[in-house]
Amino acid sequence: MRTATAYVHGYSATEARRLGDQADTLAELLHHDTGYPAGSRVLEVGCGVGAQTVHLVAGSPAAAITAVDVSAASLAAARDRVGDRVRWCRADLFALPFQDGEFEHLFVCFVLEHLPDPVAALHALRRVLRPGGTVTVIEGDHGSAFYHPASPHAQHTIDCLVRLQPGDALIGRRLHPLLTAAGFRDVAVTPRTVHADDAHPHLVAGFTHNTFVAMVEAVRDRALTAGLTTEARWREGIADLRRTGDPGGTFTYTFFKATGVG
Amino acid sequence: MRTATAYVHGYSATEARRLGDQADTLAELLHHDTGYPAGSRVLEVGCGVGAQTVHLVAGSPAAAITAVDVSAASLAAARDRVGDRVRWCRADLFALPFQDGEFEHLFVCFVLEHLPDPVAALHALRRVLRPGGTVTVIEGDHGSAFYHPASPHAQHTIDCLVRLQPGDALIGRRLHPLLTAAGFRDVAVTPRTVHADDAHPHLVAGFTHNTFVAMVEAVRDRALTAGLTTEARWREGIADLRRTGDPGGTFTYTFFKATGVG
Repeated sequence: MRTATAYVHGYSATEARRLGDQADTLAELLHHDTGYPAGSRVLEVGCGVGAQTVHLVAGSPAAAITAVDVSAASLAAARDRVGDRVRWCRADLFALPFQDGEFEHLFVCFVLEHLPDPVAALHALRRVLRPGGTVTVIEGDHGSAFYHPASPHAQHTIDCLVRLQPGDALIGRRLHPLLTAAGFRDVAVTPRTVHADDAHPHLVAGFTHNTFVAMVEAVRDRALTAGLTTEARWREGIADLRRTGDPGGTFTYTFFKATGVG
Repeated sequence: MRTATAYVHGYSATEARRLGDQADTLAELLHHDTGYPAGSRVLEVGCGVGAQTVHLVAGSPAAAITAVDVSAASLAAARDRVGDRVRWCRADLFALPFQDGEFEHLFVCFVLEHLPDPVAALHALRRVLRPGGTVTVIEGDHGSAFYHPASPHAQHTIDCLVRLQPGDALIGRRLHPLLTAAGFRDVAVTPRTVHADDAHPHLVAGFTHNTFVAMVEAVRDRALTAGLTTEARWREGIADLRRTGDPGGTFTYTFFKATGVG
């Protein structure tokens, strides 16, 4: 669940566009193997501006999808993006207005990484999942990023983001133990690695620049305020990070997708 | 090409077994999409003890495969492993005893990472490739490793390996620019990510322990001799690295596979 204080990337129009770029570029990689049967009751938790919801709907055109978020503004943007095909609901993840076992499937994408206690969140979600139903969790892991040319300056800017993110920016690698600790069984995690190079200009633009570098750049002011960096050091780091999208550069990042049974 | 001085992992029986474990565990991930037509002339360069050759043969049962290595002892071990299905040839990569354009396909696996000038090596290989023929290159990237629990001590041992490896232990991320610089066209690189967790005990054993940790452990003496570590620091780092294979731990590593046209 994204709350106004906890969501490190903010709520600006720029950020909404970034989330859309990210979701469209990565849709095949992250969502191609998610499809729920007609009529099945699916809950998306922390839908934000609907960047992933649009792909959830595309992959499960006849499922009964409910999407919740804590932010009314995000929900309004999500409804604008996706329409009334989805039941929209403003709610806190820890106080979901649903009965025990009301859903057959849970879908959680880029949410746990922003929470201080992801296992508690997963426990709260499991309550509304029918026994034997499935959970799907997708998260990033900013410690998975590596690139060419390698640069300690670029790494410094990523490290600032990792330190400033409430929750755990390195959560992707922990999905198996986290879902297991929350009581899910048959947990299966697969890495989904993006590799952007000259053969994939759409990934260089859509992922390296418009998703990853944009995300790092958005914490600049907070990194300066927190004394984690200086203007000169930050500028040098961002320039090096951008350079990985130049001809001859490469950028690699791994997302993780977990499924489990409640 | 592996030379006695350049091949950081050494030539022991333990290392031969490690290479076999690695190849068998990763065969599907790395080799499932390599298959050459019946009768096509394929050259494997730097076959070592034949750990990958056995999978090359399995995927291309009717291709005419030649395998070269600079080490007579390795070639003997490879012949023991694979048999006379392959034409074995002792040769230096920079002085291949073949005519220009003699092969239709080149296969190079875990070789470039050990060389001081991988582009020069690729140029030398391209000479024996028929114009329009294909090259396939598979390499690791030790900077791609991340794991849970995260540990600076464990990272220190990996950093020692990276510093001690002649060539470039971070070469995987550079395959696209390297093959392009060597004159190959239509270069396409795909990441192949291994994620070992409790759901995959064969990967924890075969990859985390018997491949990766074993590879790091093998440079212990050289790291001590070079003054890169101390006995206490090394012991602590290896213990933390092993811990990523304990229940609740995870280990992630990305290989890269490149193809191009000569």
